[in-house]
Amino acid sequence: MKTYLECVPCFVSQALHASQLISDDPQKHKDVLQAVLQAASNMDFSITPPAMGQHIHRIIRRVMDNPDPYLAIKNQSNTVMLKLYPQLQAKVADSPDPFETALRLAIAGNIIDYAVNTKLNETDILQTIEAALHDELPPHALDQFRQAIDQAQNILYLADNAGEIILDRLLVEKLPLDKLTVAVRGKPVINDALIADAQAASIPELVEVIDNGSDAPGTILQSCSSSFRARFQQADLIIAKGQGNYETLSNIDKNIFYLFKVKCPVIARNAALTVGDLALQRKIPCANI
Amino acid sequence: MKTYLECVPCFVSQALHASQLISDDPQKHKDVLQAVLQAASNMDFSITPPAMGQHIHRIIRRVMDNPDPYLAIKNQSNTVMLKLYPQLQAKVADSPDPFETALRLAIAGNIIDYAVNTKLNETDILQTIEAALHDELPPHALDQFRQAIDQAQNILYLADNAGEIILDRLLVEKLPLDKLTVAVRGKPVINDALIADAQAASIPELVEVIDNGSDAPGTILQSCSSSFRARFQQADLIIAKGQGNYETLSNIDKNIFYLFKVKCPVIARNAALTVGDLALQRKIPCANI
Repeated sequence: MKTYLECVPCFVSQALHASQLISDDPQKHKDVLQAVLQAASNMDFSITPPAMGQHIHRIIRRVMDNPDPYLAIKNQSNTVMLKLYPQLQAKVADSPDPFETALRLAIAGNIIDYAVNTKLNETDILQTIEAALHDELPPHALDQFRQAIDQAQNILYLADNAGEIILDRLLVEKLPLDKLTVAVRGKPVINDALIADAQAASIPELVEVIDNGSDAPGTILQSCSSSFRARFQQADLIIAKGQGNYETLSNIDKNIFYLFKVKCPVIARNAALTVGDLALQRKIPCANI
Repeated sequence: MKTYLECVPCFVSQALHASQLISDDPQKHKDVLQAVLQAASNMDFSITPPAMGQHIHRIIRRVMDNPDPYLAIKNQSNTVMLKLYPQLQAKVADSPDPFETALRLAIAGNIIDYAVNTKLNETDILQTIEAALHDELPPHALDQFRQAIDQAQNILYLADNAGEIILDRLLVEKLPLDKLTVAVRGKPVINDALIADAQAASIPELVEVIDNGSDAPGTILQSCSSSFRARFQQADLIIAKGQGNYETLSNIDKNIFYLFKVKCPVIARNAALTVGDLALQRKIPCANI
């Protein structure tokens, strides 16, 4: 998905909010803002939003002189979600359809996105989780998703954010573990999940976890390591969490399911959904159309 | 009032919306966006928001190759408000306090601000007018305003926007016409009122109308003509309509009343009000403090 012109002021605003979130120094906020305006004025708008986000967050880390400015936020999100985990696991187990409940909770977890929601609090997360149990989820998409999992031999699950990855574990537990690999980002960017966050979710105890070698807040294959690209190529089903993976993989010819919370009007328009919706959408490889 | 960092992404967003409002050509939208990002990255953030707006709208007019891109919108706003005028005039005449009703309606008219509200429609305007008749207006400020008018010998009324200026006429009719001058902007900027808009409101039939010689969406004295500055200096009471005049005249040592609708959170914070409020605030000259 290309960057829409509306994304640009939003990126400028996100950069300012990010700087305010991770530092109390007004001079740093101003430095980030000016550097991002300068960079944005020279950017190629035909790249995807996460490619633009990759550039902008490199600037933020450089100006802030901090290689992982969201580290404390990521740890805090993991801690909050781990505290909730036992009761959510019980909710899954006690529900009439544990797979569907786990899926709904994993999608709800995508609300923990500090690119969009810099003022997120625990109440917002709890409300999103509660609503996700009842929000509309197209039954045919759910059926297709179950069927795709049954048919797959090699599933690659692309995680998105810290905190969210704790809820991903609920869904991972319901997938065929012998066919599954979970991938995280390769380097810090926003609050996106790294190997340490997968470890916080104890996912390596269940399945192999790999990193993609990249600092993009999505999956830009050219920016990923060759070993990740090989694993991506080998997979016959990709489960792509989050808006960033949706935006970067929408033109890739592959059997992909996108799972995310719709958090911005541009994505909503692109996916024919409404802000706040749970998204479970299939991308069908061209060969099958 | 200085420009806050939060104003900058808002200006970028406004520039994009402005370009979309006045042209259907996506290339023009992109050209405006890139030029404004470039300019904003080099701007001195210590200037006032209208000074930044002045620069940005010069860029928009240049890139759009249109000296008055909001002309049709301004004419449309005047037409809509002129259609409503007779019934609003009757509302003023039939009210228990015609001065207060005229004041409330003149402030409500400040909603017609295409810098902030690019998607304004007639329903929004009608709702704002209806609400303004009952919205809170501090009684002490109203008393002070009446008293200041009684005591003044030379009143300068700084109009703000087209459309709004039709409602300004309701208030102008209640002021001492022999002591009053109305001023408009000197050159096109956004939908700010020019001499033609004052004429549409038939204000020159009542009092002298002057222009300030400037294309700033506020009153930046250094940017105004020397003849306007002399008139400003001679006035012993300034009635300043709109956020732009509030932002540019907040540090001027003069007897000023600001009349505006609060339309952005930065102004709300600065004026200790809430977005949506009617503002009637006095600036007391330093000599009197």
